[in-house]
Amino acid sequence: MALSEAQQQEIDALRQETAPTRRAVVPALEEILYQPFPLLDHGFLRVIDYMGDDTAIVQAARISYGKGTKKINQDQGLINYLMRHRHTTPFEMCEIKFHAKMPIFVARDWIRHRTANVNEYSGRYSILGKEFYIPAHDQVCGQSTTNRQGRSTPLNDQERNRVLEILEADARQVYGHYEEMLNADEEGNLIDPNRSGLARELARMNLTLNYYTEWYWKIDLHNFLHFLSLRADSHAQYEIQVYAHKMLEILKLWLPYTYEAFMRYKFNGMHLSEQAIDVVKKVIRGEKVTQESSGMSAREWREFLEQLNLEEQAIAA
Amino acid sequence: MALSEAQQQEIDALRQETAPTRRAVVPALEEILYQPFPLLDHGFLRVIDYMGDDTAIVQAARISYGKGTKKINQDQGLINYLMRHRHTTPFEMCEIKFHAKMPIFVARDWIRHRTANVNEYSGRYSILGKEFYIPAHDQVCGQSTTNRQGRSTPLNDQERNRVLEILEADARQVYGHYEEMLNADEEGNLIDPNRSGLARELARMNLTLNYYTEWYWKIDLHNFLHFLSLRADSHAQYEIQVYAHKMLEILKLWLPYTYEAFMRYKFNGMHLSEQAIDVVKKVIRGEKVTQESSGMSAREWREFLEQLNLEEQAIAA
Amino acid sequence: MALSEAQQQEIDALRQETAPTRRAVVPALEEILYQPFPLLDHGFLRVIDYMGDDTAIVQAARISYGKGTKKINQDQGLINYLMRHRHTTPFEMCEIKFHAKMPIFVARDWIRHRTANVNEYSGRYSILGKEFYIPAHDQVCGQSTTNRQGRSTPLNDQERNRVLEILEADARQVYGHYEEMLNADEEGNLIDPNRSGLARELARMNLTLNYYTEWYWKIDLHNFLHFLSLRADSHAQYEIQVYAHKMLEILKLWLPYTYEAFMRYKFNGMHLSEQAIDVVKKVIRGEKVTQESSGMSAREWREFLEQLNLEEQAIAA
Amino acid sequence: MALSEAQQQEIDALRQETAPTRRAVVPALEEILYQPFPLLDHGFLRVIDYMGDDTAIVQAARISYGKGTKKINQDQGLINYLMRHRHTTPFEMCEIKFHAKMPIFVARDWIRHRTANVNEYSGRYSILGKEFYIPAHDQVCGQSTTNRQGRSTPLNDQERNRVLEILEADARQVYGHYEEMLNADEEGNLIDPNRSGLARELARMNLTLNYYTEWYWKIDLHNFLHFLSLRADSHAQYEIQVYAHKMLEILKLWLPYTYEAFMRYKFNGMHLSEQAIDVVKKVIRGEKVTQESSGMSAREWREFLEQLNLEEQAIAA
Repeated sequence: MALSEAQQQEIDALRQETAPTRRAVVPALEEILYQPFPLLDHGFLRVIDYMGDDTAIVQAARISYGKGTKKINQDQGLINYLMRHRHTTPFEMCEIKFHAKMPIFVARDWIRHRTANVNEYSGRYSILGKEFYIPAHDQVCGQSTTNRQGRSTPLNDQERNRVLEILEADARQVYGHYEEMLNADEEGNLIDPNRSGLARELARMNLTLNYYTEWYWKIDLHNFLHFLSLRADSHAQYEIQVYAHKMLEILKLWLPYTYEAFMRYKFNGMHLSEQAIDVVKKVIRGEKVTQESSGMSAREWREFLEQLNLEEQAIAA
Repeated sequence: MALSEAQQQEIDALRQETAPTRRAVVPALEEILYQPFPLLDHGFLRVIDYMGDDTAIVQAARISYGKGTKKINQDQGLINYLMRHRHTTPFEMCEIKFHAKMPIFVARDWIRHRTANVNEYSGRYSILGKEFYIPAHDQVCGQSTTNRQGRSTPLNDQERNRVLEILEADARQVYGHYEEMLNADEEGNLIDPNRSGLARELARMNLTLNYYTEWYWKIDLHNFLHFLSLRADSHAQYEIQVYAHKMLEILKLWLPYTYEAFMRYKFNGMHLSEQAIDVVKKVIRGEKVTQESSGMSAREWREFLEQLNLEEQAIAA
Repeated sequence: MALSEAQQQEIDALRQETAPTRRAVVPALEEILYQPFPLLDHGFLRVIDYMGDDTAIVQAARISYGKGTKKINQDQGLINYLMRHRHTTPFEMCEIKFHAKMPIFVARDWIRHRTANVNEYSGRYSILGKEFYIPAHDQVCGQSTTNRQGRSTPLNDQERNRVLEILEADARQVYGHYEEMLNADEEGNLIDPNRSGLARELARMNLTLNYYTEWYWKIDLHNFLHFLSLRADSHAQYEIQVYAHKMLEILKLWLPYTYEAFMRYKFNGMHLSEQAIDVVKKVIRGEKVTQESSGMSAREWREFLEQLNLEEQAIAA
Repeated sequence: MALSEAQQQEIDALRQETAPTRRAVVPALEEILYQPFPLLDHGFLRVIDYMGDDTAIVQAARISYGKGTKKINQDQGLINYLMRHRHTTPFEMCEIKFHAKMPIFVARDWIRHRTANVNEYSGRYSILGKEFYIPAHDQVCGQSTTNRQGRSTPLNDQERNRVLEILEADARQVYGHYEEMLNADEEGNLIDPNRSGLARELARMNLTLNYYTEWYWKIDLHNFLHFLSLRADSHAQYEIQVYAHKMLEILKLWLPYTYEAFMRYKFNGMHLSEQAIDVVKKVIRGEKVTQESSGMSAREWREFLEQLNLEEQAIAA
């Protein structure tokens, strides 16, 4: 990420202003407000605004006239209870707003979360910046053979270097042509006074999907947690995980009790199917179970053992 | 509205605390934060929290790294432009949270606005309070004959008094029976140690629809404006209009430019159909138009003339 | 449920018409289309329309140009996989539309599911029918002491009879007064030509929450399953469970593979927290665990044992 | 659009099957069901399924037990009334499902309509096809100077040819490199047995935004009309307008009354601001109005005159 000097100054100016408020304030989040956290090679995530703190959840859950808090351990217990029992409406009472910059292919997955508010930089209205994503060496990986949607281990040096060479060269070339078609450079300066230049809404189609875009993105806490449960998951594409993991850190600063409850009951939890419950019960009773007797498919059985870090013989023999 | 002393103290305590924040602050809204505005006979509306101000809209529209503002008239011009051209996403970047108390029949209409976050007082979990809505004298009106959904003029004294007598007596009676069935009074005190009492989730069904409920309600600005355009409209039921009109006052304090743009382009605007545009064009050209030549149905024609405060002869003769 | 003769004739007429379609057709659902299933004392549920069958899910998942099906066991395997791994978008490709009649207090819980389309009978526009819900004898239960939101066992005869007497008498009385205030009976016949009658939108507030309302309700399959997972759950109020359980039967007719996957992976599954996973792992390794060493609260521990039908000593001693 | 022979056969097979249904059937839509309508150079739109017809709207509006229809002119009058008065819930009772293929930059605008169900072809899971969009000659236009988001007139031959040459050559080059990095061709055939190949989820980032993607897309009628009002509008980008205009034709086949009401009251209507209403009133009264006296900004004034096809002097002098 290379913020321009002007951008950095705007951020600094914003950070220097404070004003008194009667609203719930979270000092740990104020500390980082507006600051860009660099992600990938040119992306970032900035918290722009937030509404509510952990007590705002208990306040709404108790339909309070005041803060709604009781003893700290009762408040935390309530948050745990609400999380465990899927009482989701009080979690919708907090809201967070980010400014994020990410490659277009990441944005395309991200936008699929519909219950959020988004205002994206427009390539019809403005010229897109010359910034594209090139993966770090350890992320240039082969196709996973067990997971059709995933990647496996890093490519060897030779193959990796060729990939990086291609990505870099093609990205540079398409941007050069983008400028040529626009008849304008990145800053909007006219190139050739004798040409008209192509409309921005058309020229943009020549850019590759690793070009960066940016948006303001606002979401309520309940849907934010849902986003995190899917995008911070190890099956999500690495490039979006990076954003989700930074968000998890931010969540921890913002709402420490909610973060703890989320990690405990959702993120680090697991779901057992009817058959898996049965297997667990049998094992606890000391009975032996095999895939055949489990009622699970081979794939489910493998997933089940993995999730519990079990060796097959531990329960089958 | 009769807040208990304890409730009033909780509110006062909340209002006395302030803390510094780097977020956008709206002093005029801070001024009234947490305060209950009495509405109808026992209802109220309180602003609990808010996110953003007018500049947050331009900040998002410009995908800014700082405040995003330019000159004040440019900012206002941008807000007007966005409102006029239905660029709605920047308006989703503000959010407001209310605590509201209203009759159940009002809540039933209100909840139909789905793009909002709600946490309602639960009659399964708690005993509902003994507060019910009785309309003011000038609101005890007959059925409208022109609008199947509306009311007309006030009833005469005799009919009105009988209505008020019925509403009051029935509401009191059903609550008495509610307590009897619960075997508990409003405060939860046991009535008869020899009876079990009916489950709360069942006993509540004996209450009438004018009993008050309350909820925390949070909504983004775009959907808030949509709510206001429908519920502050003169065709909405009076009892929900009262809440919407108070919200309009709050909107004016919170986001003065957005309020002005909303009133100008949406709330006080009107929609012309294809046929109505044609009529307007003809009239401007000095041609005469009648319902027959307008292509409108009799009802549309009447609505059209009313909206423009036109006498039929002004354009037809 | 007492359908009028005219209503029954309308339904019969609809059921007699068939026409050829190229769309996916589910004969088992066609069989019951439009038929009212009586629920509670005066309610019902009718399937009005549906879109898609099990193969529509695999068709969308495979972005097919044709039916999208392969071998039946591959299609079922795919549906199981999608359900297990929370790939929810293909399930949104089916849609179902119901006509339902239920007590207002049930409708108030039901409507909280926002991702659905609803058109409700309007008490502003029409006179509400004289039908109210009276619980069956075995449903007149006391308050649960372990679950603040639930009910326990049936009341004794004396207490129950008094409850039923109250509910019945109050419901009749408020409706009589509703008619008197309207100055019209249930069919809209004028009562007293010398009185104006109160506006419908006001008179309705005198009805109790056990009066029936009705609506058309349409939802996509993914959100339908979410509704079922919450409302067919044993913690939901009995009166809404009744509707959800009937919907489960309908789901089984409509989409047998999806039904099976839903029951297996969601409805009859359970969620383990991080701590619960740890306990299960320890037990499988033959270690002893107690509440104290589990990292769970007393309440969580109790819930955990219950979900696995475990006696404490089985794992603690 | 070049459907493979296998794809065409799958479609033909689907079209040959019919089965009887009791549901609402629209013969004109059945006629075109599953057929791809070619759009742009390689895209298409196919109707996959639908729920409801015009009578389904009146059926829901009247909460009917049967078809809900009265006389045809009453049904049409009701649809007009609902459209005119923004009673949107009955329109949500119809649903339509499409299979669409379009350039990624079109998909990026399209997906911003959140109230829809989408299942997109996955570049993580599968290899993307070698099809990219090249604008037709008359669409290779310069940047509009009056509308920052739009295009103006076609470029001259020389400039246009250079643009087309660039787009074509870059698209071919990035796809060649995509295959090289994947170490597989479009059909998935291994290229070099000595290389691993890059993961699909990474290789896809080298494709340009004019590559085609496809999805299943399902939406209710109310939100469909909203989509059309924005995307069939002359200010939308031409490439998405093409899809929206085809959808308008399909709407006309599917729901002729709704189509007519939509065109009349929404699509071909216009919105007047408070100031514009005032100007219209003055003009009708024979008063003169200028921009200065209108209370409108210069830009609003120009837009207003354009919308009514008015010359300034017609009302100002």
